[in-house]
Amino acid sequence: MQTYKAPLRDVHFCVHELFDFVSHYRSLPSGSELGMEEVDAVVQAIATFAEDVLAPLNRSGDEEGAHFEAGKVRSPQGFAAAYRQYVEAGWPRLGNPTEYGGETAPYSLKLCVSEFMQAANHSWCMYALLNDGAIKTLLGFAEEALLQRFVPKLVSGEWMGTMCLTEPHCGSDLSQVRTRAEPRGDGSYSVTGTKIFISSGEQDFSENIVHLVLARLPDAAPGTRGISLFAVQKRVADTANSVRCLSIESKMGLKASATCVMAFEGAQGWLVGPPGRGLNAMFVFINKSRLGTAQQAQAHAEGAFQTSLAYAQQRFAGRSPTATEDAGPAALIVHPDIRRMLLIQKAIAEGGRAFVLYCAKWVDLADSADTHARGRAEQRLALLTPIAKGALSEWATEATDLGIQILGGHGYMKEWGLEQRVRDVRITRVYEGTTGIQGMDLLGRKLLGPLREEFVAFTDEILALAVRVERQRSLAGLAAGLVGGVNLWREITDVVGEQSRLDVASVGAAAVDYLMLAGYVCVGYVLAMSALVAQERLEAGDAESAFYRAKIQTAQFFLDKLLPRVHVHGQSIRNGSGSLMGMDEASFGLGV
Amino acid sequence: MQTYKAPLRDVHFCVHELFDFVSHYRSLPSGSELGMEEVDAVVQAIATFAEDVLAPLNRSGDEEGAHFEAGKVRSPQGFAAAYRQYVEAGWPRLGNPTEYGGETAPYSLKLCVSEFMQAANHSWCMYALLNDGAIKTLLGFAEEALLQRFVPKLVSGEWMGTMCLTEPHCGSDLSQVRTRAEPRGDGSYSVTGTKIFISSGEQDFSENIVHLVLARLPDAAPGTRGISLFAVQKRVADTANSVRCLSIESKMGLKASATCVMAFEGAQGWLVGPPGRGLNAMFVFINKSRLGTAQQAQAHAEGAFQTSLAYAQQRFAGRSPTATEDAGPAALIVHPDIRRMLLIQKAIAEGGRAFVLYCAKWVDLADSADTHARGRAEQRLALLTPIAKGALSEWATEATDLGIQILGGHGYMKEWGLEQRVRDVRITRVYEGTTGIQGMDLLGRKLLGPLREEFVAFTDEILALAVRVERQRSLAGLAAGLVGGVNLWREITDVVGEQSRLDVASVGAAAVDYLMLAGYVCVGYVLAMSALVAQERLEAGDAESAFYRAKIQTAQFFLDKLLPRVHVHGQSIRNGSGSLMGMDEASFGLGV
Repeated sequence: MQTYKAPLRDVHFCVHELFDFVSHYRSLPSGSELGMEEVDAVVQAIATFAEDVLAPLNRSGDEEGAHFEAGKVRSPQGFAAAYRQYVEAGWPRLGNPTEYGGETAPYSLKLCVSEFMQAANHSWCMYALLNDGAIKTLLGFAEEALLQRFVPKLVSGEWMGTMCLTEPHCGSDLSQVRTRAEPRGDGSYSVTGTKIFISSGEQDFSENIVHLVLARLPDAAPGTRGISLFAVQKRVADTANSVRCLSIESKMGLKASATCVMAFEGAQGWLVGPPGRGLNAMFVFINKSRLGTAQQAQAHAEGAFQTSLAYAQQRFAGRSPTATEDAGPAALIVHPDIRRMLLIQKAIAEGGRAFVLYCAKWVDLADSADTHARGRAEQRLALLTPIAKGALSEWATEATDLGIQILGGHGYMKEWGLEQRVRDVRITRVYEGTTGIQGMDLLGRKLLGPLREEFVAFTDEILALAVRVERQRSLAGLAAGLVGGVNLWREITDVVGEQSRLDVASVGAAAVDYLMLAGYVCVGYVLAMSALVAQERLEAGDAESAFYRAKIQTAQFFLDKLLPRVHVHGQSIRNGSGSLMGMDEASFGLGV
Repeated sequence: MQTYKAPLRDVHFCVHELFDFVSHYRSLPSGSELGMEEVDAVVQAIATFAEDVLAPLNRSGDEEGAHFEAGKVRSPQGFAAAYRQYVEAGWPRLGNPTEYGGETAPYSLKLCVSEFMQAANHSWCMYALLNDGAIKTLLGFAEEALLQRFVPKLVSGEWMGTMCLTEPHCGSDLSQVRTRAEPRGDGSYSVTGTKIFISSGEQDFSENIVHLVLARLPDAAPGTRGISLFAVQKRVADTANSVRCLSIESKMGLKASATCVMAFEGAQGWLVGPPGRGLNAMFVFINKSRLGTAQQAQAHAEGAFQTSLAYAQQRFAGRSPTATEDAGPAALIVHPDIRRMLLIQKAIAEGGRAFVLYCAKWVDLADSADTHARGRAEQRLALLTPIAKGALSEWATEATDLGIQILGGHGYMKEWGLEQRVRDVRITRVYEGTTGIQGMDLLGRKLLGPLREEFVAFTDEILALAVRVERQRSLAGLAAGLVGGVNLWREITDVVGEQSRLDVASVGAAAVDYLMLAGYVCVGYVLAMSALVAQERLEAGDAESAFYRAKIQTAQFFLDKLLPRVHVHGQSIRNGSGSLMGMDEASFGLGV
């Protein structure tokens, strides 16, 4: 009973009306001549592929799961065939360098359409959409010989890449990586160790796999500075390399995706980038994946909203609050509490989309040839990426979960696909760094450190928008709410700065609250921006007034019902770390 | 890797130190001579049963699931045998009337120990723990002949009861019930209709099943006033009745529990209570189940806390914030954000336990023979039950979900059992009435109506406790926080009262925020009460000082990090229903 339609109207709004991608592409230092029709053609094509090919495989993939037998992974019925279709259409080439067989397109366009695929079938994307990160990492760090060996095959989609970080004893803390790499004397290395949680570590989509593996050279320093990056093929020429999939995990969700335990047993690999710089190289991949994860989460919010809305329109229960005593049952959507939940989903789906695409414009600049533009954009992305990844993954959990609540008992059943969304989206708060890790990155590593100036610039930008919003009298409340949020964000940043001078635990104690507070302000920003554009269209007498009114109403809902949460996060931070750190470790378990 | 230990120390704290059940039992108008040793013996026995028999079946039950074949349900391996053990120990008799074979015990004692079983194996409890509600409903409404027919078999556990409310087209809105009951002329009725979501509608635990079924007599009024209650046996004497299980549901969680679609095809049944009063009778069952559901949720919070704590103590990652740069990785529990999540779980598990047992004392009074005490207690329970059910089920979702977050990628895997807790607990926010329904019941039906006086009495009681807490100088902050919460609760009650005079949507718009606000104050109340008792023990020089200090610290954590959430709920309510109701129904979906 679940269906998925690519939200083309709202994507059009973001791409053309809100962010004007076509002008942005023209102004990119790297240059891009993509016109409106070309952009819309890509959007429409991927939308159709997602709706017609990927969405129908989503539930069957969950039910069937990935198979593992004798070291081989078999993906669920239809998955590999869908990938062949994807490759044949040439889509993996999009946004990759032409010298390796790619087709020019800014990252933002690619991200714009990947929402449809993520919403339609998250598990399938776990196989199909990892290559871009691998390619970018190789382009940034590998020598030409390696580029020639790997990149054309990855660009075409014939081969696929993985990222191999986690080991049984260490995940978030990569300083504990134990996998070893020993020089073979022929320029290659023997890689030995066990990696876990490797998405598509083994699969039946591609003829070969390029594993990007964190490992230590014999003379490596301890900690993260001793970690190097290696590219390890599944097959070298026609010979199987010494890398095996030992098992796949039994998980809460993403059951169609093979999450592999990989054994590297003296596998031949090649060093990517300088020794000891493996984590820097891998972070190219990770940062790309973090924004992608933000989008996966947002895509689930959209998918959950669509199913919930369809149900709320067709299911009848309870009298409308405005009806007379003897009125019959009304559609669920008349009830205020159902609307509250639908609007949370809608605000997260639309606000999240606008926020992700706002970030994507900065990625385009960071990818560009202009060093100055690039530096600036990298700073901005360093600030925004943990916020987008952390906050959107948290909200998407809320949005999908509310889908179950809107459907009641029926939401708990497999039939409507909402419980699958809850299970699938859950990993977005964990992989590519938990919300706690994102919070520490944002607050501890960046805002209390080198990004303070960029933070001021970004919040100034928000305040400038607020001034424009305020000029539209009907949006003055929105402007005031946004300004309140920004001011609180600045104030709390100072509060934690003060706390951290006296209390080493304060940053960790504040991290998640701080990240969420920032998230509300950021999404408030893009929603206010959307409301301003919508108001301008309404004043220009645009015929599509219902769409634009709904945009403004969604922003107003966010202001009334979600933005106030910043105050709880602020208060929680002000209350400090005392009640977290005071309890003895041994006392936690004394109730048993 | 999951283990469960009954939290005996904290239960002892609640039963003896916080609520002094033994004195309470002595003072009950219905009289109960249970001493400390007898209470502790029951607690210990059920704790052992839950730990040794039920907990080991929890994961295997989830993996295997309930089976359905040719109209028969087979429960997972070991489930029915565990029930035989439970029956042979005589535990179903506990708390049921001696004239039907029961053994005297106040409800609170029974609820106190059912936490262990719910935490150990929620699915198993879905079969085993429904009888008390069925018995209570029959005792309240059925004629003596029916009581004689059903109650002794239900009390002994030989037969089991179900509640059959939901139909394919209606769940929360029972006014739409279509199942018919026609008189057969022999005092019995022919019941015809389809019921869905019937837990244990068919099973292999008991030789017979008594379905309590909502249906309409031929001349029934429309709406809920036309609904009557019927008891329909699976087998009448030795003959199969015309009631069949058509299928069982495929669900997010509780996979070991059979959720049945039941077809009543002219099944012979008996009227329970007067015609048209079916909902009143069923609400005896429902209210009992609502407090039980609150406990199921709390039990999951405890279970998730135990697993998360074990992991946080044994897994090493990241430096302690107080360590030097070159320190090695420390146990997760040193990290502030991990502590934040563990303490949320702990506060919900312990605060929830105290709140449920506080409610249970009122149930004892409501069950008593004294009419005055009963009326008062019923009022108090009418106020507290939706809060306990709604808020605890919401928090338990948060607490179990944080378990996944604490374990990171490992939490997403089946191995540790946390993802199962998330899936299992999710239904507690839905069945026995969604959180929205609880909020409307609390606010719309009760606090803006007949229970206003009881609300004042209850909040006065909290304020009186705050005065006592404040006298302990070290707890003054706790008292002030509690008073702030109570005052906000009162104020917001007036705000909604005002809004509702002008805006019919305001109550529905406020319902869930209101319920959650009330929940924080209620749990703040019992945690402050706990802190006061703990402080008194510390001052008396009790040797177990770490336990009591942790009690106070948990209350302080709740005050610092969770209680501030009341302000968001308050602000959201103040912002009214405008941004929920303004959007046209057709505009919600315009983004597609």
